[in-house]
Amino acid sequence: MHVPFAELKALLESIFERHGCTPAVARVLAANCASAERDGAHSHGVFRMPGYVSTLASGWVDGKATPEISDLAAGYISVDARGGFAQPALAAARDLMVAKARAAGIAVLAIYNSHHFAALWPDVEPFAEQGLVALSVVNSMTCVVPHGARKPVFGTNPIAFAAPCEGHPPIVFDMATSAMAHGDVQLAARAGEAVALGVGVDGQGQVTQDPAKILDGGALLPFGGHKGSALSMMVELLAAALTGGHFSWEFDWSGHPGAKTPWTGQLLIVIDPQVAQGQRFAQRSRLLLEQMEAAGVSRMPGARRHLERERAQREGVAITASALQALRDLLT
Amino acid sequence: MHVPFAELKALLESIFERHGCTPAVARVLAANCASAERDGAHSHGVFRMPGYVSTLASGWVDGKATPEISDLAAGYISVDARGGFAQPALAAARDLMVAKARAAGIAVLAIYNSHHFAALWPDVEPFAEQGLVALSVVNSMTCVVPHGARKPVFGTNPIAFAAPCEGHPPIVFDMATSAMAHGDVQLAARAGEAVALGVGVDGQGQVTQDPAKILDGGALLPFGGHKGSALSMMVELLAAALTGGHFSWEFDWSGHPGAKTPWTGQLLIVIDPQVAQGQRFAQRSRLLLEQMEAAGVSRMPGARRHLERERAQREGVAITASALQALRDLLT
Repeated sequence: MHVPFAELKALLESIFERHGCTPAVARVLAANCASAERDGAHSHGVFRMPGYVSTLASGWVDGKATPEISDLAAGYISVDARGGFAQPALAAARDLMVAKARAAGIAVLAIYNSHHFAALWPDVEPFAEQGLVALSVVNSMTCVVPHGARKPVFGTNPIAFAAPCEGHPPIVFDMATSAMAHGDVQLAARAGEAVALGVGVDGQGQVTQDPAKILDGGALLPFGGHKGSALSMMVELLAAALTGGHFSWEFDWSGHPGAKTPWTGQLLIVIDPQVAQGQRFAQRSRLLLEQMEAAGVSRMPGARRHLERERAQREGVAITASALQALRDLLT
Repeated sequence: MHVPFAELKALLESIFERHGCTPAVARVLAANCASAERDGAHSHGVFRMPGYVSTLASGWVDGKATPEISDLAAGYISVDARGGFAQPALAAARDLMVAKARAAGIAVLAIYNSHHFAALWPDVEPFAEQGLVALSVVNSMTCVVPHGARKPVFGTNPIAFAAPCEGHPPIVFDMATSAMAHGDVQLAARAGEAVALGVGVDGQGQVTQDPAKILDGGALLPFGGHKGSALSMMVELLAAALTGGHFSWEFDWSGHPGAKTPWTGQLLIVIDPQVAQGQRFAQRSRLLLEQMEAAGVSRMPGARRHLERERAQREGVAITASALQALRDLLT
């Protein structure tokens, strides 16, 4: 089946409102989740809706929280999400953040006391569409074993980056610093498919290719050995220590059965390339893209999402009848 | 043999001056190179000196360049290294950079028209010693094949990060985004040792474990597949496109036999955690370190360098007689 994007977004908005979000919060989360589904990022699309709903029902996250913005310096904004979602906190500070990045050349947005349960690229891509360079990190929940360790400490701790590119959509990537994103491991478990060697370990710390064993008492490994592990550590320092948010192991949701969202922090750095380079940055960005294509790169980071997006604009968002019915069931 | 650090540094300083550097440039480069040797980072220690000397002799780099600093915005400094080394450009802008980071909360330093032939951690560690968080990237020379490509485009494009840690030396890492640092491949070739699978390809694009084949017409691969490749791309965008420096494939040193240093750019971002967190950041950083150690991490990023440094402070810097003689020969 194919559903127009606006219709899918409106349905998700109704679900979020039905389960205790304000209209403003529901609008932000629905746009994020529907965009992920539209762009083929299924592990962060409608697949996440039952988790959102059970989390809201558990009282673990406040769907009505009003973020509190502190304008701390020429290039520094801090936002207390007050136990709500990170995306409405970012949305509330967005205009101030853009103004600061343009005036100071660079600015940092430190969100804490926040829940991030979504893809990270939707947080950075819009800045690149405005000609800015954006980098964001978010920590999550303990499920990744540091290189050389016996037990998990880090979350999947993604890093997302976006840069403008003249005559093209922005160059965007969003990568878990774990060998595989948690949502993708869940999708593999649901599909009964093995994951690659090096993705994770079972509850005894033994290497396994069974995603169910990774999810059930096991853990993920960082991508790229000690280097991915160091990057994941950096994400903990930036997203938690620097923002004032929780580290990935610091929250206890055992009193909230159904809770799925990590209660941590998020850091966003935005740079205005116009300060030094004017339009030249986007031209140089395009030259890099062309050089990579000439060397044989057939799919630039973010390109698949744009292809899926264009198709969805023509045909609507592809969704199975049962998935659509499951969403409608969340309205009752 | 063991040589006191100050003596090694003074020897290197004399060599740089003898080969056309101003005393100011010689001082900065000698401190950097001697520190790498002292800390056991041999691929960026005295091993590099013949390359520095041949590059200076070739006229490819200007050892007498005076960097030109542009104060562009509350959080933005641009430095034209004027064909000299990146480290004196950073040194010249350092105090202004610290002042901006403290006042604006975050600042960016964009160095271009610069040559960087050294380890990157010495550029970030001193900021962390002052209580600041620092992140730096530098692009280098085309020798890394992007994921999915047939030909090299990127440099080894390292990322370095440093953060203060209460009661401990700063937490510091410095990683090539290639599977192995170029200097380490050269050391393996010199020692006749095989490198791991996945490090590189030969001139025909075939996987090889022979470092000589990687260096002679072959190429390196990114670490961690498509993720390391995306990070290397980000380094090109930040260190070259954003600074106004060359991409890793854009300079032609064929007219300068003996030239070894990449003529590119470097970006440095410095954040003052005190703006929002006061002393709490360094305390939280220490808690993360303790949690990682409790999980079994026996060697934190940067810890080996500090151990080597302490030993060198007691015993002097370990160096073979032949290596010391080779350095002295560079004085004649």
